[in-house]
Amino acid sequence: MPADPRRVAPRARPAATPSLLYLPDLEAAGAILELPSEDARYVARVCRARAGETVYATDGRGALARLRLASVTAKVSAEVVAVEHVERPRSLVLWCGAPEHGRADWLVEKLAELGVARFQPLECAGEPWPEGRARIERWRRLAVAAMRQSRRAFLMEIGSPVPLAAAIEAMERPVLCWVADPDGSPAEPGLRPGALDIGAIGPSGGFAARERERLGAAGFLPLRLSDGRLRTETAAISLAAWWAAAGPRRA
Amino acid sequence: MPADPRRVAPRARPAATPSLLYLPDLEAAGAILELPSEDARYVARVCRARAGETVYATDGRGALARLRLASVTAKVSAEVVAVEHVERPRSLVLWCGAPEHGRADWLVEKLAELGVARFQPLECAGEPWPEGRARIERWRRLAVAAMRQSRRAFLMEIGSPVPLAAAIEAMERPVLCWVADPDGSPAEPGLRPGALDIGAIGPSGGFAARERERLGAAGFLPLRLSDGRLRTETAAISLAAWWAAAGPRRA
Repeated sequence: MPADPRRVAPRARPAATPSLLYLPDLEAAGAILELPSEDARYVARVCRARAGETVYATDGRGALARLRLASVTAKVSAEVVAVEHVERPRSLVLWCGAPEHGRADWLVEKLAELGVARFQPLECAGEPWPEGRARIERWRRLAVAAMRQSRRAFLMEIGSPVPLAAAIEAMERPVLCWVADPDGSPAEPGLRPGALDIGAIGPSGGFAARERERLGAAGFLPLRLSDGRLRTETAAISLAAWWAAAGPRRA
Repeated sequence: MPADPRRVAPRARPAATPSLLYLPDLEAAGAILELPSEDARYVARVCRARAGETVYATDGRGALARLRLASVTAKVSAEVVAVEHVERPRSLVLWCGAPEHGRADWLVEKLAELGVARFQPLECAGEPWPEGRARIERWRRLAVAAMRQSRRAFLMEIGSPVPLAAAIEAMERPVLCWVADPDGSPAEPGLRPGALDIGAIGPSGGFAARERERLGAAGFLPLRLSDGRLRTETAAISLAAWWAAAGPRRA
C-alpha cells in the first residue's frame, strides 16, 4: 500500500516539517543520526522545528521512519523512533525521447512527483539528449526534492539515454506497454494500467516510422492522450497522470 | 468532433507549417488576408514557406481554415481556400488556487495544450494571486502559442481571479464537478468526465476546511489523482490530463 508517512508505526504524531527528510542511510529504531546539512537547514531554518518534535524521513528505497529531534542547534540530530517498509503495489517506467530544449527539468520534477518508478531517456533517430554530467546531477536533485515534497518512500530512478532497441531488449516481463499516439485509442474504461507498466513517449519530432513499428512489434498499445497534438513533456506527464489517477484505493 | 485541421474541406493538403496560424479575424473562403507580423515571421522565417504552399489557421473560436500563401516577401498574404467550424463535444473548466511563485506560467501553457476551455483563477483564503496586467497578457500569449502548437480551434479563456463563493454562484448547470483531494476516490472506471466538467484545485496550502465544505455542498466529487501529495500545478495538469485521456474516439 502507498503508506501515509504520518502513520508510521507504532502511532502517528504531527510532523514538524511538511516534507519528508531524505536519509539514504536510515538506520533501525533506536539509532541517533546527525542530519545532512541540507536537511538540518530545512528542519531548523525553514520549518523552525525544535528539539522533541517529530519529523518523518525516507531512505528512498521504501523505508519510512518517524524520528524525534534530539538536538537542534548549528547541527541537528534525531532519534529513529519507528521504521516501516512500504510496498509498491505497481510501477510505471517512462521511456522518453528528448523534448525541446529547456523542457526536461520540470518533466523530471513532475514525473517524480507523480510517483514514476524510473525515467528512461530514449535516444531516438536524429534527436539526441544533450550530454552532460551536470544535467544528471540536477535531475537527481529535482527527483529527491519531488520525492520529499510528495512524501514518497521511493526515489525515482533516472537512466542514462539508451537507443529504443536496447530498451526493448532489456524489458522486464510481464508488463503492460503503452505508446502515446494521437491515432491510438482514448483511455476508455477497459484500458487500465497494470502492476508494471511501461509508457513510451516520442521525442519532439515524434517517433520515426521504424521506431513505431518496433514498439508495435514489442507489444506497445497506442494510447491517445488528447485530441490535440501534445509536446513531448506534456505527453509524458499526461501518461503518468493517467496512470497515477487510476491507482488503487488508499487503505 | 475534434477535427484534424489537415482535413479542412474540401480536401486536405500537406501543411507548410507544423503549427496553426492564429487569425482572429478569419474571413470566408475567397478572402485574401495579410498575416499579422508574428505569423508572417513564422511562415517566412521559421518555416521558410513559399507562395503557393498551404497553411492552416484558426480564429480561436472554432473555425479552422485552409489557406494558400499568395505572397511571401517582407509581408505575407494568403487566400482563404476553405473554412469549417468544429464543434467542441465536451468542455473542462479549471478552477485553480494560486500555486507557488513562478509555477503558473507553465501551468497555463499545459492546460491550454490539453484543451481546457477556461482557466479560472480562484482567490482562496490567505493565498491571493499576484496582481498584474503583465501577467494576464503573458498568459494570453502562452495560451495562443499552445493552441497553435496543439492545433486546436479554440483559444483557452482566462478568467480574472474570483473568490470561491462567486465561482460557485456563477456555475453553469448541468455540470460534473471534481475537486482534487488526496482522500478522495481514485479515478475508477465508473468515474468518467461528462459533457461539461469543472475541476477545482486548491492553492499551494490546500483548500481551507470551509472552502472544502462549500465545494462539497455544491456537488463537487473528491477525486484522488495520485497516492502522493501533489503541488497545485501538478494536480491541475493531472486533472486536465485525466479528463483529456478519457476523450471520445476520433472520427
